[in-house]
Amino acid sequence: MGTTTAEALVWETVFAQRAARMQGAEVSELLKLLALPGIISFAGGIPDPALFPNEAASRAYAEILSDPAMAAAALQYSASEGYGPLKQDIVGLMARLGVAATPDNIIITAGSQQALDFMGKMLLSPGDTALVPAPTFLGALQAFAAYEPRYDTLRLDLGNRGPASYAEDAAAAMPGGRVKFAYAVPDFDNPTGVTMSLEARERLLTLARDLDIAVLEDSAYQALRFAGDSVPTLQALDIAHTGSLDASRVAYLGTFSKTVAPGLRIGWVCASADLIQRLVLVKQASDLTVPAINQMVMHRIVSDGHGALIEAARRLYRDKRDAMLAALDAYMPDTVTWTRPEGGLFVWVTLPDGVDAGALLKRAVAEVQVAFVPGSAFYHDASGANTLRLSYSLPDAAAITEGIRRLATLL
Amino acid sequence: MGTTTAEALVWETVFAQRAARMQGAEVSELLKLLALPGIISFAGGIPDPALFPNEAASRAYAEILSDPAMAAAALQYSASEGYGPLKQDIVGLMARLGVAATPDNIIITAGSQQALDFMGKMLLSPGDTALVPAPTFLGALQAFAAYEPRYDTLRLDLGNRGPASYAEDAAAAMPGGRVKFAYAVPDFDNPTGVTMSLEARERLLTLARDLDIAVLEDSAYQALRFAGDSVPTLQALDIAHTGSLDASRVAYLGTFSKTVAPGLRIGWVCASADLIQRLVLVKQASDLTVPAINQMVMHRIVSDGHGALIEAARRLYRDKRDAMLAALDAYMPDTVTWTRPEGGLFVWVTLPDGVDAGALLKRAVAEVQVAFVPGSAFYHDASGANTLRLSYSLPDAAAITEGIRRLATLL
Repeated sequence: MGTTTAEALVWETVFAQRAARMQGAEVSELLKLLALPGIISFAGGIPDPALFPNEAASRAYAEILSDPAMAAAALQYSASEGYGPLKQDIVGLMARLGVAATPDNIIITAGSQQALDFMGKMLLSPGDTALVPAPTFLGALQAFAAYEPRYDTLRLDLGNRGPASYAEDAAAAMPGGRVKFAYAVPDFDNPTGVTMSLEARERLLTLARDLDIAVLEDSAYQALRFAGDSVPTLQALDIAHTGSLDASRVAYLGTFSKTVAPGLRIGWVCASADLIQRLVLVKQASDLTVPAINQMVMHRIVSDGHGALIEAARRLYRDKRDAMLAALDAYMPDTVTWTRPEGGLFVWVTLPDGVDAGALLKRAVAEVQVAFVPGSAFYHDASGANTLRLSYSLPDAAAITEGIRRLATLL
Repeated sequence: MGTTTAEALVWETVFAQRAARMQGAEVSELLKLLALPGIISFAGGIPDPALFPNEAASRAYAEILSDPAMAAAALQYSASEGYGPLKQDIVGLMARLGVAATPDNIIITAGSQQALDFMGKMLLSPGDTALVPAPTFLGALQAFAAYEPRYDTLRLDLGNRGPASYAEDAAAAMPGGRVKFAYAVPDFDNPTGVTMSLEARERLLTLARDLDIAVLEDSAYQALRFAGDSVPTLQALDIAHTGSLDASRVAYLGTFSKTVAPGLRIGWVCASADLIQRLVLVKQASDLTVPAINQMVMHRIVSDGHGALIEAARRLYRDKRDAMLAALDAYMPDTVTWTRPEGGLFVWVTLPDGVDAGALLKRAVAEVQVAFVPGSAFYHDASGANTLRLSYSLPDAAAITEGIRRLATLL
């Protein structure tokens, strides 16, 4: 027997190269701020639990587990593609978005975070280019990072570069490197709250066609519109060109986390059956299946109650957004600007040049007990130091008003 | 607008290199055989649903969802490392295996399949070598394949090559290529049913120390011993050398799928806190968290009922194993040999040289309505054509006897 030191493994020495890209996220540290007593947190994009369908969920679990045949299926291994009746619910939901899907176009995932991971796993070799907005959803950057991509910046307004420029830069960065996909949150973007115009969507699709790449449409907030008119999904617009979902280059990533409850961890990908077949193999190798019991419960909840849940969420978040915008109007100095979302959970704030949101967060927590996410966390290139994301989803209207008032005292 | 063909994306053209390693698994096709009417299936390693704790689960869901504060936590996002009280249950379980762990040594995963995926993600760069038995658990081969390893063969008896030979072959296969880990199912192996002796375990650990690599101990069946004496876990044996879990090179992969129910999708990794911290980041980027509600339910089920569930499983599977061994003894010709497991779910059968188990399966399904898994699926090098895996977990004793009788008529 050797000495302790000689026998111990230094785990770092056996890590994959990708481990360098998967470092501790600022955000997990930030989430701990939520737990501090007395903090008014605008940090997480956390749904208000007042919206959770506790009774419907309780009834559904009881029904399923009191029937021996259903219980045996609910607690057993199940198909990697997902529970048939829930897939049928999603087919109906996609139809209302103008997308004619069949169950073969759907896979159920553990929230849309897992869909992002699977798309990275399926599409990205090290050095391949992913086009992502700056800023964009931090969870997407984290999911893709494990597959060691190069990022280039996609603009969600009309300002993208020509396709040749993107392709040349991808090839110059690595021999054989190419652009694989463009990623966007077109409706009530996380983190900006901005919705892409129809014209911007068509321009993005044209860019994707010119580059012959995939488009990942992250639609986590799409159902939560409480003002203005809805804009067709990227997938519906692409199908108008290609003629069918199976020919579409758009993979639509949906979730029940924002309209039902995130704790059941149920999302989906709707896309060409060619892609879905491969994602089923990815699911099988990754974690086999989403728990059957939760899929059966979700089916019961959404098959007759989804509309009412969505309406309740729209009302609640509209009131909270109104409270936040009114407080920003009332308290913030003229040097600070912000977005005015028509849905979703987020307002994006731009501070004067030279004001660092990370430093502001430290002061905000220490001096006025307010938390938010500094904007630089959402930039693949770590820019955006003078920006920050506010979520109005969790605090009540009075806390929102008070939190913004306090924050403004620091600016 | 272009023509349909010009506008459509051929998804294959944007797939990552790893996609070539993630092809359709024979086994997903095989699982469909389970659904054929009248088939006696020895194919899946599927727990008997008669063992599922329907009532305890039902009671737990009802308790949690009828308490507003608990419901709000159960249906909300939750910590990526897992639910504290369940981690504490696992600390207790590891203590009974001779492993002194703290909650910082535990992460909750979506079954041990996800733990396998995470270990591959964390440890394997393309071309790195993984030492795996031949045959070994197919799900492990599928999980690791996504990270494009080279495989070399680990022997679970005393027959491994010297460490220099493994290291040289890894380096010769790819510049910078090295052995990263050895993987094994030491107790009631899937697929062979064989348990590693104490001496074989110590030899494996010595090899791992000499190579300075990690060891992944897949302990899915460890609790299901119904004959013979238990052998210390690889992790406990390694800790006897290194002095502490934090210094150990062994990551222990556990699961409640075989002792409670697979449908809740709850497993864990117990390992050095250095590794666990990194796996928490992997979890966050992959799917954020195991559903809080299922973790809370699992805690309630195991904190006062795990022992009884394990005892019931041992009794049931012992009786089924006895039925299978008796039928094999009674009906199989002398040219066929098989293992005699002391626990777990599997018997491994070796047919005469030149008899192809894949061809036998086709005949067995068509002519005698019996299914099993051809052994070659479990070999990283696609050898083992004359082997097959029988699981006795799902059919009852009469069906086991009848199925083996029918199968023997083909041999």
